[in-house]
Amino acid sequence: MGAAGSEAATGLVGRVDLSRLVNPSSVAIIGASDRPGSLGSRTVANLLDHSDFTGTAYLISRSKKTIHDLPCYQSVLDLPESPDVALLVVPAAQTLSVLRECALKGTRFAIVFTSGFGEMGEEGKRAEAEMAQIGRESGMRIYGPNSPGLCNLNRRLGLMFSPSFHLDQFAGPIGLATQGGGIGRCFLQAMERGVGVGLWASTGNEVDLTVADFIRHYADDDAITVIASTMEGVKDGPAFVDAALYAAERGKPVIALKVGRSDYGARAVASHTGSLSGAAEVNSAVFRQAGVVEVDDMDELIDTAALFARKRPTGRERIAVYGFSGGGCALGADAVGNAGLELAEFSDKTLARVREVLPDYAAVANPVDATSDILTRTEIGYESLRAVADDPDVGLVLYPFPCDYEELTEAIGASIAQVQRETETPILPVWMSDRLGPGYDELVKGGLVPVRSVRNGTAALRRWVERGRWTHQEGWRPLGVASSGGERIVHTEPTAKELLGRHGVPVPASGVATTADEAVAVAERVGYPVVLKVVSAQITHKSDVGGVAVGLADAGQVRAAYHRIREAVPAARPDAEVGGVLVEAMASAGLDVLVGVSRDPVFGQVVTFGLGGVLVELFGDVSRRLLPLTPDQARALVDEPRCAALLHGVRGGEPGDVDALVDLLVNVSRFVEANAAVVDELELNPVRVLPAGQGVVALDAVLVTAGSVEATQ
Amino acid sequence: MGAAGSEAATGLVGRVDLSRLVNPSSVAIIGASDRPGSLGSRTVANLLDHSDFTGTAYLISRSKKTIHDLPCYQSVLDLPESPDVALLVVPAAQTLSVLRECALKGTRFAIVFTSGFGEMGEEGKRAEAEMAQIGRESGMRIYGPNSPGLCNLNRRLGLMFSPSFHLDQFAGPIGLATQGGGIGRCFLQAMERGVGVGLWASTGNEVDLTVADFIRHYADDDAITVIASTMEGVKDGPAFVDAALYAAERGKPVIALKVGRSDYGARAVASHTGSLSGAAEVNSAVFRQAGVVEVDDMDELIDTAALFARKRPTGRERIAVYGFSGGGCALGADAVGNAGLELAEFSDKTLARVREVLPDYAAVANPVDATSDILTRTEIGYESLRAVADDPDVGLVLYPFPCDYEELTEAIGASIAQVQRETETPILPVWMSDRLGPGYDELVKGGLVPVRSVRNGTAALRRWVERGRWTHQEGWRPLGVASSGGERIVHTEPTAKELLGRHGVPVPASGVATTADEAVAVAERVGYPVVLKVVSAQITHKSDVGGVAVGLADAGQVRAAYHRIREAVPAARPDAEVGGVLVEAMASAGLDVLVGVSRDPVFGQVVTFGLGGVLVELFGDVSRRLLPLTPDQARALVDEPRCAALLHGVRGGEPGDVDALVDLLVNVSRFVEANAAVVDELELNPVRVLPAGQGVVALDAVLVTAGSVEATQ
Repeated sequence: MGAAGSEAATGLVGRVDLSRLVNPSSVAIIGASDRPGSLGSRTVANLLDHSDFTGTAYLISRSKKTIHDLPCYQSVLDLPESPDVALLVVPAAQTLSVLRECALKGTRFAIVFTSGFGEMGEEGKRAEAEMAQIGRESGMRIYGPNSPGLCNLNRRLGLMFSPSFHLDQFAGPIGLATQGGGIGRCFLQAMERGVGVGLWASTGNEVDLTVADFIRHYADDDAITVIASTMEGVKDGPAFVDAALYAAERGKPVIALKVGRSDYGARAVASHTGSLSGAAEVNSAVFRQAGVVEVDDMDELIDTAALFARKRPTGRERIAVYGFSGGGCALGADAVGNAGLELAEFSDKTLARVREVLPDYAAVANPVDATSDILTRTEIGYESLRAVADDPDVGLVLYPFPCDYEELTEAIGASIAQVQRETETPILPVWMSDRLGPGYDELVKGGLVPVRSVRNGTAALRRWVERGRWTHQEGWRPLGVASSGGERIVHTEPTAKELLGRHGVPVPASGVATTADEAVAVAERVGYPVVLKVVSAQITHKSDVGGVAVGLADAGQVRAAYHRIREAVPAARPDAEVGGVLVEAMASAGLDVLVGVSRDPVFGQVVTFGLGGVLVELFGDVSRRLLPLTPDQARALVDEPRCAALLHGVRGGEPGDVDALVDLLVNVSRFVEANAAVVDELELNPVRVLPAGQGVVALDAVLVTAGSVEATQ
Repeated sequence: MGAAGSEAATGLVGRVDLSRLVNPSSVAIIGASDRPGSLGSRTVANLLDHSDFTGTAYLISRSKKTIHDLPCYQSVLDLPESPDVALLVVPAAQTLSVLRECALKGTRFAIVFTSGFGEMGEEGKRAEAEMAQIGRESGMRIYGPNSPGLCNLNRRLGLMFSPSFHLDQFAGPIGLATQGGGIGRCFLQAMERGVGVGLWASTGNEVDLTVADFIRHYADDDAITVIASTMEGVKDGPAFVDAALYAAERGKPVIALKVGRSDYGARAVASHTGSLSGAAEVNSAVFRQAGVVEVDDMDELIDTAALFARKRPTGRERIAVYGFSGGGCALGADAVGNAGLELAEFSDKTLARVREVLPDYAAVANPVDATSDILTRTEIGYESLRAVADDPDVGLVLYPFPCDYEELTEAIGASIAQVQRETETPILPVWMSDRLGPGYDELVKGGLVPVRSVRNGTAALRRWVERGRWTHQEGWRPLGVASSGGERIVHTEPTAKELLGRHGVPVPASGVATTADEAVAVAERVGYPVVLKVVSAQITHKSDVGGVAVGLADAGQVRAAYHRIREAVPAARPDAEVGGVLVEAMASAGLDVLVGVSRDPVFGQVVTFGLGGVLVELFGDVSRRLLPLTPDQARALVDEPRCAALLHGVRGGEPGDVDALVDLLVNVSRFVEANAAVVDELELNPVRVLPAGQGVVALDAVLVTAGSVEATQ
């Protein structure tokens, strides 16, 4: 069964109150130790020495009477109360029995550090299924296994074994949810650039709590304004989308890095957290649709999240490039152009002011090359940057710093930080040099979070501006219905078309004939010219077996074609069951597009749209959306492929009936929605798009369901 | 006149011996000073205090008797000898007169720091033209203006005014040539990662010496093994290509960042160094053809050059990903896949060894997740990494480091450096964290040049492997012939086809008719069906004016069509001169492609190849090469677009006659070569590619020349 069905199946996913996990009154450490360097002793130290924990700590050890001046318990069962959180620092072999004890004791949350489960193969996966079972039966929520724990830095609380917990503490507005531990800590160490993380959850193999649960928690946490995430797999696609949309509705952007987008990556994540990677293209399409900002690497995740934490974009921001190196400015302007962003146009007032303060060989239009003069005359740097940042057309200032000049760049850094204190316009410094001098430190201290390359800066900027343009139809949620798992049925073309036609999808006028006379009768009714196609669920490529005849202009041609088909098909495919011949009115000329629906194992039903033909296939020029489709989403789907230009009439071509195409897509969506549990695959290829005002018509239809369609209608 | 003509015009470009510029016996500083912080005093200090300069220094100052314990001269004319190099630290207004004095004195090289010339506009450009004139007339070579000077770090010599010269000294095998100064220094500061630069030239506005001259010099310098470059414009395209190929022939890869590839960037470089940016697509195509590795940002330039400096690629390298973070390894494997690189397959011996030393929950196939166990057990990290690096299928090990763990990662860093000392296989560490701890330092000390992100690592790797596959036909050079500048002539279709036909380009059998009888006679000769097209140099779109008739099957149809055309065209275009009607045999069905030649203002004649039709235009799916084309280059040109799949027969389509298409391209190239000074534009659109073995035929031809073609034949 696909993950789309796990909610119904497990009952574990939903709106979980995690407040007593991230801010517990009582914590039990099972496997506490005082052996230096052991996981048990580090976990104790992180809670008791390096946290501001004011609740009750219970240490459970079979061998020790006291640890860290606290009495030890033999078992979690001996505790005087049900703990909010139990940390399991126990070997893999004991994990299940200790979890059972925790459940029995009424523990609210169990954090399992231990590795060696799903990532090891089938046996580990069985143990994980047992863990999930323990959780389901008791109501205890499980975090992990194969997890480094979590930390609530806004409250200085560490439920983790890492020796670095005490070093990587820099509170802030970012809520971080990562599956893996190492790359989560990578993010925390961006504190060196002034990036603050309020809460970090690293959910490991996710037998119960997932990244999605934390996204939802962060959405409700007032101290968190931006959510950053890395995922190896998405355990429950609809729950993830739901959480992302919930966050979006609360004004909190989600920035995400999805690992496992190539075959190699998918193989690697399977051996790391035992995750299933869905199709990368579907994943990216779903992210876009849910307002999740997708990034490609850890530095981009950090750069982008940090930029969102500084200011919310409107989507209308235009960029100023300012610097003291002509080459750096040119590189910056180039990158702005290549990223599809726009340079701001300065007002006359700004230009006059910049011209007034800078030397006459400076470039004053955007980009502003203030020249190296500002290295020795900081005040003209300050004045001109201030004027640029205050220009009404400037949404953000990109400031490339090519190299460090010690005290000279220190003064510049301080003056930039000064300007930033006085303006609302974000200034994004690009510290291009590998020498991180005192100027860099000034920028970090000023909260400007320097990025490391012009490419990184414009990549973050592009994502920031684009997310500013994202619009969400309040309340929209993906279908998220699991497959019924019923018998696979391949419907014949006339059946599929009839079902679709009932939902308002335009199909050609037609009828099924089992004699030549019937074929002629249908043709007379629908009007010539007609096309004849053999009806058989077993035959996918009807032309290849002589099962198609097109452009039949009169009764004689229909009759002849009918007989040809009835002879050719059984000869070519004696195995196929033939249910007659479909006689259809031929559509007039237009542009052919394809509309497909498939059931993604992670996210559920996805619609794919593109132009027909081999070239489009070569370029993969299609768009995708999770169903259901609103009319606005359908229109965006149509406009997204580059080939959409043809539909709108490019180079003298006639525009197609896009409105009718949008209607068709919405009706296809309604059909799938009405039969969500059974529709596994639907392909309309081609859909003929006639000239504007003349409609569209689905010329072919393949429908595959899991069980009968009628049963669900 | 285009830059392609500057060699002939200026006589300045060619093989310049720069040895006395980069290693002078005598240096004159004109505008020497002892005022602290002045350009003059910093230039003196850089030469006398911070260099190991053993030649003679002459200081020229109008106001001082001695500086730095050396006597000052009033003028360069007073010197006892002709200096090898004169450094001009003088205001813009004095530059020309001082340059004249230098020339008069027999100075070999003049370095002009001063800004405020070509980048300021027309007046500055005129001053630059005068500089060039002074150089041409005297033989003195000019470096700059608007340049920070140059430094020869392999000999510790600085001919520059920068206050950072003494800090940024880390000799090494990279020869660096940048137009701008700031981004050149950015590269030097990569010494913090262990990147060593032997020589850096920053050529500024390039009135004479260009980046290309330094590329050629580095190619001949045994201490330089890799050449890195940034360019805002290419002053002389053919000279640049020639230098790049010269370097390639000497086994030295050139890595280049071209700024000014977007409209914004092009505008910015114009105001920075007054450079002209050619078309970005042409630039990239020329780089590829000349073996120049193009990068997109400064960090990529550094990462890529540093990797080439470590080892030369064969193009067959497969990659191992190794690390102690499962997430980091998955991200690395993902990036390898997304970059189109291949993961190595370990031998059984490697697998057995890795399995033997690592814990059983480690992932031992590629990628290797050695787990955090190696943080505390460095020896198993060493042993397993050693086994991976020694595997015969491993060409390079990518080692993602997600975060710093102080002394733990220090020990890991040291052990990686140890493995690197013992193996030829490069290990490329990715230091993902913003905390640069002692482990980072160990990697730098070991010469492993850590990159900052998985994306950066795989980007460098991809370029490295791809360059390993590049092959060059020894001796090939671009045409590099300037336009004759003659009168613009648009040739009629029959003239163009006749000229091409003489060079072996297949064109339809045809004749021009001026009466209906003649038209029929030609049709009878070439065979039906035929096509008729009006002949007129003024009419580009013949169909639009009723000037075309296709599929004419007999004399009657030809006659009727002839009269229709002779009536319709004058009615639609009374201004156009009509030279009769072209009667051509119609080609049979095939795939239509386009072949175009245009004269790029920077690089000269470029051929463009792609499939015809509007979709290809939407996707910009074309390939380009500088002319002339060898048969191998022509074949690569055809295979490069994604649409090439159609020519080779995709999804049941019939393969086209690619051999004949290659012949046509080579013959087009020969035609252009034979008429290089006059051919400005040639478009064969479409060329009909018939099924394999049946040839190709150019169905249409547009030829625009600068002056008469015959004159050059």
